[in-house]
Amino acid sequence: MSKLEPYSRKLPYSYALGLYPSHALMDARPESVRRLLLSSAAYGNEGAEKLRERCKVLGIREENAERVLRRESKKENCFAGLVFEKYADPPRQAQNHVVFCQISDSGNLGTALRSLLAFGIADAALIRPCVDPFDPHTLRASMGAFYKMRVAIYDTFDDYRENYPAHALYPFMLDGSLPLQEVARAARAPYALVFGNEATGLPAHFQARGQTVRIPQSDQVDSLNLAIAAAVGAYAFAHRTEEEKK
Amino acid sequence: MSKLEPYSRKLPYSYALGLYPSHALMDARPESVRRLLLSSAAYGNEGAEKLRERCKVLGIREENAERVLRRESKKENCFAGLVFEKYADPPRQAQNHVVFCQISDSGNLGTALRSLLAFGIADAALIRPCVDPFDPHTLRASMGAFYKMRVAIYDTFDDYRENYPAHALYPFMLDGSLPLQEVARAARAPYALVFGNEATGLPAHFQARGQTVRIPQSDQVDSLNLAIAAAVGAYAFAHRTEEEKK
Repeated sequence: MSKLEPYSRKLPYSYALGLYPSHALMDARPESVRRLLLSSAAYGNEGAEKLRERCKVLGIREENAERVLRRESKKENCFAGLVFEKYADPPRQAQNHVVFCQISDSGNLGTALRSLLAFGIADAALIRPCVDPFDPHTLRASMGAFYKMRVAIYDTFDDYRENYPAHALYPFMLDGSLPLQEVARAARAPYALVFGNEATGLPAHFQARGQTVRIPQSDQVDSLNLAIAAAVGAYAFAHRTEEEKK
Repeated sequence: MSKLEPYSRKLPYSYALGLYPSHALMDARPESVRRLLLSSAAYGNEGAEKLRERCKVLGIREENAERVLRRESKKENCFAGLVFEKYADPPRQAQNHVVFCQISDSGNLGTALRSLLAFGIADAALIRPCVDPFDPHTLRASMGAFYKMRVAIYDTFDDYRENYPAHALYPFMLDGSLPLQEVARAARAPYALVFGNEATGLPAHFQARGQTVRIPQSDQVDSLNLAIAAAVGAYAFAHRTEEEKK
């Protein structure tokens, strides 16, 4: 890792860019951090100095790397970032999951992860072909949420299912058989909310897997943005759990 | 309008770019359409030919304007678009509203409008300073939803309120006094869901205006993306309305 390469899926490391995401990574996965990158403007900035201190304590090397920060963030004002080693941390058995099948937009994935974490889902599975969750663009859109979550990639949905045979499956489909509010009320944990590709949704054979869900929506609109659908689904399921707790 | 200028807020017209949004505009506001723009690749394409027919019937001039399409869409493969006159169409008195105060991201606004329409809210108010709803980037993010809605801009929240004194106000704030599900259950229509700026939220004085709402979320996340918050809010309120109807 002597020379820092332009990010690509094949690299064993990635970049956490910006102060807030860098601190989030240090909170959640300090052991994965390899290097601290700073721009000249960072020195003296409070958040950047805190990050320097935290890295010093852990013996993480720091360097002035303005050019790398500009190249990776595509922004002029990226103060600081961390180089970190990619890690594997699969979803937990006892927790609720979200499964994204063939998701293709990195911004969508990041925004969706941030919303899922907000509504209490911290475990996610991606089914190939899918965007790279370690892509700096995904990481940035997740606003640091990715580091706090457990996300793994599976070749097929069946591979995922073999590892987690007990989760109640809720595939979200435009022609799902029951409306979200009804399904959420009766849902059984641990559950897996399953979403398909942005343009094409889930293949029809998911009609036979678990309880399909329809988010009631006006006929004025074609469909919902994927991150919006995932957030609304997670909110409705989380809300139901709260009611159960009472 | 002889020479088509690069889009700016000051122009009296804007651009609907892409086949789907162009058809959506023709469905909702045919009287505002002034010109049909086509790329060479459009001729023979089914959707483009349908658009040509619709324009011909209404006497709308068509022209090959590949350069304009490329310039405005910033894409190579934009087949067709419409030039249309900006129009004023304020929110209706008897309908539910969403009010965005100082929203600053055009993509956020477009995505939010699309989700709101999906959950049955077709009337929106924007409070200055705010993004331009006629910006082609907003229009594109709304996937045509904007044309089907009534959206108006007000200088201040009080200006909006003077025009709509009877709406029950529900300001969404991180420190709102009641959780969304509780407020939604007891809400009174017509209502106005009020959201603040992406970074700063609503000013504190909104605590004294109507019933403030908190979207319950994990302390693992700073806040929700604005379009996500608006969609979850609208879903929860719409769902409550459905239950009432039973």
